[in-house]
Amino acid sequence: MEFANYFPIFNKLTPAQQELLTASVKQATFPAGSLVHNGSMDCMGLIVVHTGQLRAYILSDEGREITIYRLFDHDICLFSASCMMRNIQFDITIEAEKDTTVWIIPPKLFGQLMEESVVVSNYANELMSSRFSEVMWLMEQVMWKRFDQRLADFLIQESNLEESTVLKLTHEKIANHLGTAREVVTRMLRYFQSEGMVKLTRGAVELIDMDRLENLQ
Amino acid sequence: MEFANYFPIFNKLTPAQQELLTASVKQATFPAGSLVHNGSMDCMGLIVVHTGQLRAYILSDEGREITIYRLFDHDICLFSASCMMRNIQFDITIEAEKDTTVWIIPPKLFGQLMEESVVVSNYANELMSSRFSEVMWLMEQVMWKRFDQRLADFLIQESNLEESTVLKLTHEKIANHLGTAREVVTRMLRYFQSEGMVKLTRGAVELIDMDRLENLQ
Repeated sequence: MEFANYFPIFNKLTPAQQELLTASVKQATFPAGSLVHNGSMDCMGLIVVHTGQLRAYILSDEGREITIYRLFDHDICLFSASCMMRNIQFDITIEAEKDTTVWIIPPKLFGQLMEESVVVSNYANELMSSRFSEVMWLMEQVMWKRFDQRLADFLIQESNLEESTVLKLTHEKIANHLGTAREVVTRMLRYFQSEGMVKLTRGAVELIDMDRLENLQ
Repeated sequence: MEFANYFPIFNKLTPAQQELLTASVKQATFPAGSLVHNGSMDCMGLIVVHTGQLRAYILSDEGREITIYRLFDHDICLFSASCMMRNIQFDITIEAEKDTTVWIIPPKLFGQLMEESVVVSNYANELMSSRFSEVMWLMEQVMWKRFDQRLADFLIQESNLEESTVLKLTHEKIANHLGTAREVVTRMLRYFQSEGMVKLTRGAVELIDMDRLENLQ
């Protein structure tokens, strides 16, 4: 089964555990723009990304957003199963940024495997450590990096992801990634434009001087 | 041994593991103000706090600080043993805020216990989940809370910890807790003073209107 290639510890499980997992795992497809997991509202289970791109973010009471991490092919998300993780006291929301196909491991089954298998438990530990490291990195960015650098970083990262220098992104969307207000993004993009680093058109940002954007970092 | 009362899963370990742990665990004392753990410089092991108060923080390249969490009696710190946790890619620094006595579990022993015991591995998971939740909470504060509210929160929390309304804290120290510049703290404290909420004296902040400080939150 293809799933086994996407679940790195599959071969370290017992035959009974492998069978149980294979029988229980479900495939699901989320079209670009759709909500995959909605904070504490659901406990869908562990998500294993087959193809596509997901965005995990947190929301403020006023509806502001900041992207916490993204998930690509082969990535695994633990927090969509946070209901069965003791001591997890925060909610993340996950949306599909591109058409995405995933496998879902039911939360109860994963909880059971964590209780009985040191391999699964240590793997959950590794997954959490990776996400923790990403969040600590983000914290350092937010605390100590100038906003022009964060914006330039984001534009370059998007350009690499989309393999294009023309990014179809509204200022609102960029603000939601970076956890700031739309006006702040607009102001900085206009400054970038006046410096000849980008060109702004309706609903798109074109990167025209990658070197200078990179040197801002 | 008293240590067993401070290590919640002690009774779930095998007799051999209990013996190994009891024989390997070391006690250490850190006077107030001393460095306990210095980022990636050392891998001291798991810290179990007996008495005292520790502060875990991150440092920017320019030497700015922000407090990530604090540890009190019975608290356990995983990240002072991060060398043996795969995928942990950030450094924290830990200092003693008060005279502190701890037990230290050697990193190799803890790593070995994690490999062989699903109880230990799941416990490490729980510890990490708790810290992760604290960091996510902090991220939300930093992103979305006004600075006057964060400062008021901090002063009230300190007042509860010290059981006093007179806090012997320099503006520099407060800035290092909150991840901001000293001048920002000074400006806001002066505003608090002009509003009659605090009284500033050399090296100390006296909280004189708790109600209003609390209502800022």
